Amino acid sequence: MGTHDLLWQLALLIISARVLGECASRLGYPAVLGEILTGLLLGPSLLGVIQVTETLHTLGQIGVVLLLFRIGQSSDIQHLRRHGKAGLALATTGVILPLALGFWACRLLGLNETIALMVACTLTATSIGITLRTLSDLKQTDTPISNTVLTAAILDDIMGVILLSLTYQFAVTNSIDLVQTLAVGSSVLVFFLLSPIAARIIATLIRHVADTSHIPGLTSTASLALVLVFAAIAEVIGAPALLGGFAAGLALSHHFMIPIDLETEAEDRFVEKVRQAMHPIEQLFTPIFFVVVGASIDLSQIEWQSPTLLALVTLLTLTGIAGKVVAGLPLLRWPWRDRWTLGIAMMARGEVFLVFAELGRSSGLFDNTLYTALILVMVIITLIAPICLKWMLKPA
Amino acid sequence: MGTHDLLWQLALLIISARVLGECASRLGYPAVLGEILTGLLLGPSLLGVIQVTETLHTLGQIGVVLLLFRIGQSSDIQHLRRHGKAGLALATTGVILPLALGFWACRLLGLNETIALMVACTLTATSIGITLRTLSDLKQTDTPISNTVLTAAILDDIMGVILLSLTYQFAVTNSIDLVQTLAVGSSVLVFFLLSPIAARIIATLIRHVADTSHIPGLTSTASLALVLVFAAIAEVIGAPALLGGFAAGLALSHHFMIPIDLETEAEDRFVEKVRQAMHPIEQLFTPIFFVVVGASIDLSQIEWQSPTLLALVTLLTLTGIAGKVVAGLPLLRWPWRDRWTLGIAMMARGEVFLVFAELGRSSGLFDNTLYTALILVMVIITLIAPICLKWMLKPA
Repeated sequence: MGTHDLLWQLALLIISARVLGECASRLGYPAVLGEILTGLLLGPSLLGVIQVTETLHTLGQIGVVLLLFRIGQSSDIQHLRRHGKAGLALATTGVILPLALGFWACRLLGLNETIALMVACTLTATSIGITLRTLSDLKQTDTPISNTVLTAAILDDIMGVILLSLTYQFAVTNSIDLVQTLAVGSSVLVFFLLSPIAARIIATLIRHVADTSHIPGLTSTASLALVLVFAAIAEVIGAPALLGGFAAGLALSHHFMIPIDLETEAEDRFVEKVRQAMHPIEQLFTPIFFVVVGASIDLSQIEWQSPTLLALVTLLTLTGIAGKVVAGLPLLRWPWRDRWTLGIAMMARGEVFLVFAELGRSSGLFDNTLYTALILVMVIITLIAPICLKWMLKPA
Repeated sequence: MGTHDLLWQLALLIISARVLGECASRLGYPAVLGEILTGLLLGPSLLGVIQVTETLHTLGQIGVVLLLFRIGQSSDIQHLRRHGKAGLALATTGVILPLALGFWACRLLGLNETIALMVACTLTATSIGITLRTLSDLKQTDTPISNTVLTAAILDDIMGVILLSLTYQFAVTNSIDLVQTLAVGSSVLVFFLLSPIAARIIATLIRHVADTSHIPGLTSTASLALVLVFAAIAEVIGAPALLGGFAAGLALSHHFMIPIDLETEAEDRFVEKVRQAMHPIEQLFTPIFFVVVGASIDLSQIEWQSPTLLALVTLLTLTGIAGKVVAGLPLLRWPWRDRWTLGIAMMARGEVFLVFAELGRSSGLFDNTLYTALILVMVIITLIAPICLKWMLKPA
């Protein structure tokens, strides 16, 4: 009956994340910083009281999907479209630069081409979760900057998925199957274009059923099921689950309209109802994700004296930061300060980075020192990214 | 990255439970019936698409703890106290009768004394979850009947825990350690008397912190953490986790007052806020528990032709039902119809029954036929209990 171990762990996790999140927030930093630190503190790095079991991992996944759902729900699709070009430019530069710089740095340190390419790819993926959570903690939602970053982060994730599939194929087979890569890329694109419409149609059905339901709680359960289904579809076609959450959220935002929506007022009331029902659920699950990110890292295993490690960490951290930070500079129409802010906002790495690094290790390409170096790079960037972003967004 | 399997399973589970729950409700039955049927349908008995993994089991446990939290929150401690004596009488008769009848039935069928005792104990435990959910589905909350049943079901659970510890000791060692049994019994009692007060004090602290919190969502996360902590404490001292949920809920009800509560109005607003924040979370998790109960049963493994099985199932079902149904009859102050209703309300078996049966099997006391018979008895009683109760509570 060992359920109580899990109940303790969950209670401890929720309380600690809350306390450290609150501390971070009171010190003026985004709460997400406190939550990642909670993971480092309770995980194997320090106290070792929390193990990332399948249960915890799943709860965290649901958490980040729900975060993206909330962000989708509070997004205005018109605003996103208006910043589409800037977002695309930011994402493209922000993928190419870390790729080139990272490759160069690895070659400089004597790694072979395949490994260098895989490390460079690992450096490309912005953490959509950490970035958007930080912006939301800093009360930046639906501003020109946040909308551009949101568009860029999503495009960045899609590029990341395609890059991952390319590099992994290349690393394993030494050749590239362009057809399969195009298939993955286009199905992700089609999913992303069609799913909000599909989700909206389903939501309209839910709304009509909700009026006649005999048992309470339809809105929250049906909305959550909708989000889970779209997250699962996203994973099946090879995209991160959180994109499914975002698509479902976008569909259930006030600003998303499709031709069948004639009863605008009833729709608006329903959207508001969904928002209110999902809020406590999201607030409960989301911090679990960030704690799990922190607890997935084991700093206690690191040989801190290794000179190779030091060289790798220093060079990769610098290229990892530089590649993103200057990515906003080519956006000539924006004021200088905003161009820097955009780049800094794309700096955080997280879940996708971990997936890349883990793939490199499990495929035998990354040895332990390289893997450890990447984890340290992630920790450093992840901890300073929210601080830098907060500093840039501070009222002058 | 096989998370999408779990996302699918969870989405499928939530949607199916909702659809079958809705169907049951429209046909006039409690929704919980549809949810248990969902488990039988999706679990190994029929389709086999849902496995009761650790994750699902934990989510279900959280669900039943939250159900008891909600029931605690909507309970009036004065009303419970008023029905304390009736509840105690109902619980005692409802434990002694199935124990005696079940023992007699087993002996009649030729089982040895130890096994007969263990089977008889298995028959004693009312399912607090199914019973209270059925009453709540039938809109029976805070009525004399529901309060008596609630008190009786809780006392029944405490007696069940003590009986379990006694019988198990006896079965394994052939002797009984009275000191240890008394220790378990009294710590459960002390927990139950002190925990609502402790929970209320913590809740008052939470309320004061909530006013100054910098990040949203404190009420839901802190309340959930409180519930989880009390559930975990209950498990640690040897009581079912759901008792901890109930104690925390009782502490956060409108009617629970302790000397330090001077700011009644602020307290009332806070209690209401907790109720609203926890509602969507509870509605999400609770059905998972009942689906898990259904999915824990594998009807496909049963040899339906065995005459021993048939005899066991028939006799144990009859004694299991009779032992509870007549338990309300000695309550001389109640009208006849209500006495029958009280007994029928105590009929449902569920989680504790499964724990007993599983313990009997794993300790080698129950062979496969006996275990299977018990599972069938549970399925039959569980499926007819909500139907009978609904029929008794129907306006004449």
